[in-house]
Amino acid sequence: MAREITGFSNPLVKRVRSLREKKFRKAEGLFLAEGLRILTEAREASMLPEMLFHAGADHPLARDLIDAMEAAGGDVIETSADILSKISGKDNPQAVVGVYRDRLTPLEQVDRGSADIWIVAQSLRDPGNLGTILRTGDAVGAGGLILIDDCVDPFSVEAVRASMGALFTQKIVAARWEEFIDWLRQGAGQLVGTSLNTTKDYQEVEYREPVFLLVGNEAQGLPEAYEAACDMLVKIPMLGKADSLNVAVATAVMAYEVLNQRRRRA
Amino acid sequence: MAREITGFSNPLVKRVRSLREKKFRKAEGLFLAEGLRILTEAREASMLPEMLFHAGADHPLARDLIDAMEAAGGDVIETSADILSKISGKDNPQAVVGVYRDRLTPLEQVDRGSADIWIVAQSLRDPGNLGTILRTGDAVGAGGLILIDDCVDPFSVEAVRASMGALFTQKIVAARWEEFIDWLRQGAGQLVGTSLNTTKDYQEVEYREPVFLLVGNEAQGLPEAYEAACDMLVKIPMLGKADSLNVAVATAVMAYEVLNQRRRRA
Repeated sequence: MAREITGFSNPLVKRVRSLREKKFRKAEGLFLAEGLRILTEAREASMLPEMLFHAGADHPLARDLIDAMEAAGGDVIETSADILSKISGKDNPQAVVGVYRDRLTPLEQVDRGSADIWIVAQSLRDPGNLGTILRTGDAVGAGGLILIDDCVDPFSVEAVRASMGALFTQKIVAARWEEFIDWLRQGAGQLVGTSLNTTKDYQEVEYREPVFLLVGNEAQGLPEAYEAACDMLVKIPMLGKADSLNVAVATAVMAYEVLNQRRRRA
Repeated sequence: MAREITGFSNPLVKRVRSLREKKFRKAEGLFLAEGLRILTEAREASMLPEMLFHAGADHPLARDLIDAMEAAGGDVIETSADILSKISGKDNPQAVVGVYRDRLTPLEQVDRGSADIWIVAQSLRDPGNLGTILRTGDAVGAGGLILIDDCVDPFSVEAVRASMGALFTQKIVAARWEEFIDWLRQGAGQLVGTSLNTTKDYQEVEYREPVFLLVGNEAQGLPEAYEAACDMLVKIPMLGKADSLNVAVATAVMAYEVLNQRRRRA
């Protein structure tokens, strides 16, 4: 269904704009994604938004999106650049904004054998880090991101943006630590923690798929008890004065090592 | 010199707060760094601020900083948590804020042989990426970060924070591309570009120190002419739907490969 909205006070505009806040996302089960590149990634992963806002679809990719929405019977709303600005909270809004149903995967539905790498992050605080980790997960062929304990909302606008669309290709799971470890031990899976409390070099160990890469909170790292539950703790060498890497960087360096070992065996 | 400021309208408070904006940083040649962890990293790299603001130094590291400032004859200003909030623009300000002299290194003063890796970034837009790249540079023992063309300000509060103090241990250079390439070709140095326009796997090549790792703008990547000037273009394998990694992640994956090759030769 295609329609037009021209008024700032339109209740749908207000409702969509409210999805920038976590409480409204939770209440509605919906989230925002902005920009042709991300919405096109989503479409390629067979994910169409429930509603698509655009301010005149000039770009062929925008046209493709609208065609796909119309074929699927989705809600396409043409509006002004000013109203798109209001929705996105930016002066130079993206050409398209999509409203998607959120999509956490329950832990028990995760098919661990479907991928060689799973990324597990505990108490992640920064939405940019979360999105960047999703993007890396997509690149290394990870199955998804398992968020442990209280992490930042993966459906926040900042996380979606940083994921560059990987939010739509990676499974996202949220679990308490106890649930996760119970589930993990019911099947195959090597739990590898990245830690400063070991001397084991991350390149000196052999990873056995499926590998569950566990990284901790930006400021605190992993709790001791979580490290103790790992099959292995490894350390990325650091030559400088600082004692840690950015968590998204550490995740990527680890994930590429797992991938590279597998490439050498292939 | 130790003194106390209790008034919000104190001109020094206003002046320091103005350093959150680039034009005032440029005009003053000063920038802000916040938090004990980052200021302590700076002190360990023998960098003391010109002015240190604190709201009662409870922590031993804060005490150490103040002692060092007093020994060096620096300006230590005790103030209220509210005024620190005003300076830092945050509700929960860090316990200490330092005002530092900015410190770009002129290209001609770079001793390229002093490190095995140099990171070169072109038209970087995101301060978090810039700071994260500095932090990675510190970890891999890079000599510094060479910023090409119009990059985001490395002395912005966000970049300083993301660098976690590496801003004080890495040399920072700003240069136009032509200047850089002229300088580079006057001595040893392998210029390696990370690009999608090659099939050469980043693990299949041999890096020869000093390696200059060149990464491009977040959205556009490297200009064609810059790629053409590289000694080598390499690609990080990507198995997923997305066609690129976050630039700070790509830099880290590359830099660790260079480091790992050297570790294997050692």
